[in-house]
Amino acid sequence: MKKHNFSAGPAILPDEVFKKASQAVLNFNNLNLSLLEISHRSKDFVEVMERARSLALEHLGLKGKGYHALYLQGGASMQFVMVAYNLLNNKATYLNTGTWSSNAIKEAKKFGDVAVVATSESNGFNFIPKGYAIPSDADYFHCTSNNTIYGTQMRQFPESPIPIVCDMSSDIFSRALDFSKFDLIYAGAQKNMGPAGTTLVIIKEELLGKVSRQIPSILDYSIHIKKDSMFNTPSVFAVYVSMLNLEWLKEQGGISAIEKKNDEKAELLYNEIDRNSIFEAYVPEKEDRSLMNVTFNIKNEQLKALFETEANAAGISGIKGHRSVGGYRASIYNAMPIESVKVLVDVMKHTEQKA
Amino acid sequence: MKKHNFSAGPAILPDEVFKKASQAVLNFNNLNLSLLEISHRSKDFVEVMERARSLALEHLGLKGKGYHALYLQGGASMQFVMVAYNLLNNKATYLNTGTWSSNAIKEAKKFGDVAVVATSESNGFNFIPKGYAIPSDADYFHCTSNNTIYGTQMRQFPESPIPIVCDMSSDIFSRALDFSKFDLIYAGAQKNMGPAGTTLVIIKEELLGKVSRQIPSILDYSIHIKKDSMFNTPSVFAVYVSMLNLEWLKEQGGISAIEKKNDEKAELLYNEIDRNSIFEAYVPEKEDRSLMNVTFNIKNEQLKALFETEANAAGISGIKGHRSVGGYRASIYNAMPIESVKVLVDVMKHTEQKA
Repeated sequence: MKKHNFSAGPAILPDEVFKKASQAVLNFNNLNLSLLEISHRSKDFVEVMERARSLALEHLGLKGKGYHALYLQGGASMQFVMVAYNLLNNKATYLNTGTWSSNAIKEAKKFGDVAVVATSESNGFNFIPKGYAIPSDADYFHCTSNNTIYGTQMRQFPESPIPIVCDMSSDIFSRALDFSKFDLIYAGAQKNMGPAGTTLVIIKEELLGKVSRQIPSILDYSIHIKKDSMFNTPSVFAVYVSMLNLEWLKEQGGISAIEKKNDEKAELLYNEIDRNSIFEAYVPEKEDRSLMNVTFNIKNEQLKALFETEANAAGISGIKGHRSVGGYRASIYNAMPIESVKVLVDVMKHTEQKA
Repeated sequence: MKKHNFSAGPAILPDEVFKKASQAVLNFNNLNLSLLEISHRSKDFVEVMERARSLALEHLGLKGKGYHALYLQGGASMQFVMVAYNLLNNKATYLNTGTWSSNAIKEAKKFGDVAVVATSESNGFNFIPKGYAIPSDADYFHCTSNNTIYGTQMRQFPESPIPIVCDMSSDIFSRALDFSKFDLIYAGAQKNMGPAGTTLVIIKEELLGKVSRQIPSILDYSIHIKKDSMFNTPSVFAVYVSMLNLEWLKEQGGISAIEKKNDEKAELLYNEIDRNSIFEAYVPEKEDRSLMNVTFNIKNEQLKALFETEANAAGISGIKGHRSVGGYRASIYNAMPIESVKVLVDVMKHTEQKA
């Protein structure tokens, strides 16, 4: 029996994506060759890369609007560096909403001045700062749309006089936004769009060419754009599975259709956390709560063993909280069916009754 | 019917590796979860990473000798940058034997002085320079052991008064060498050790900490060492398949056993190229010919169509030469059975007879 997989990432993908990916490892496109052994310059793989790039722009409503989609390597941690390498000339501004923002800030400081416009660090990153001003003399404003570890999410994005760079690693393709407000979006695939091993970068070309430093080729966005995301051998399998997942999303009706399902799942789970006498949400403000990563604690430590035994028995996997927060975290990405959330809610109810 | 896949990379891997990899995408380690959806910090994947690291050192005879094995992202092209970032303080020396060496030199020049000790560029990189001196005042000497595009290979490595860094992307694990003579070895997996998406780095820790520049975390070898190659989410699937392939290599008897088979395959093919009146080798000097990538031309252009039709009919795939060289290239990596080489040799004989 398949588990109910609430892992924060690498994370659940649709079963049919796993089936197609598994088949392609044996025989891809009826070539009598594995996907893993064909040239990345072959017609068959070039089509995969082009389709993956095209689907990403299409889902985000950015086709024909001056954006490029790239599938790079190294995860969001590499983007912390590439963003600063390519865009930070004098000063950059960052919003600090958690571990990943903090790491992005740390790396950017190696390339120039960094101003942090606001931070929620003193409160254990359990809210999203608002009402800050973005200085117009900085090169760009950087934010993290969703914080996997703490379970907060930006519902509103500030008006900005300078380009906005956003790390959307854990909520990309989960909700409708006006994505044209962003100048650069990046996302490690392994949260909500594919397996580990590739990172989507959506970038407006006009952003580039404004820094004076020499950029190593593999870290230079303009080179990747010029080479159609094939400057060197890409992470073939991860790009292919991401493409399959974006095709699945299209069959589901795209972002607006999946957003409704995501809203229902999150509402079901947060309602139970708020109702249930033995649990409490990590994030007090409802408007700051993540619809992707639901963080909560058990009030009485002595009930932990009971809850975890019940959860295991129900086939629930991956709900342990991040080591820096503790408690529990249920990640309910696009591919998570509401039935699995219902199983978790039932386990929470049973635990309360037995307590 | 499976093809005879002579692709230069991504390239052939053993059938049993494909089968196990395909199964893991559906259900890994009987967890009732796909390999693609489990946490990289889970016990099951940490074991994969540790086994992959351990097997690499074991095959190279470097266990317990002060080396670390890392599985990073970004391919050899990222290593061109990381090597210079981490090791180039004042001056580095490079041997230029082809496209990849040239690219490595180009990137290193962004970080300091680069002296090219010798080059075979004027002869279309069809030989390996010898008899050059390595200056003792440079930080390291860099070479490329095998040139996938031109089909040359270093049989001997120079005595060096400074650390040796070697790009072994296309011949790692193919032949016995005293690997302890090297201080840093790197290899994009997709040629002879796994699928695209991960890069093996073998590094002596004592090499590090000698440059004064600030290094971005994700490009800092010492951070990857400290984090046991899990500084951030690795390319999970590519590491797993590389581990399967290194296990397969062990079952075959390791590097010394596979080297014998590789020698036989190369001898069979080069003998036919030299004997056959319609073909000629790209690399004239026998001692400089690659045992991995066999490059050759057809003397009479009008016979191309005949040869390619015969090859296609026999199920031969991936023998087109690199666009910068033309002609043909048969890559005969570890997983290529001698039977496939025999099929190619037969096609060459038939073409000669029909010509």
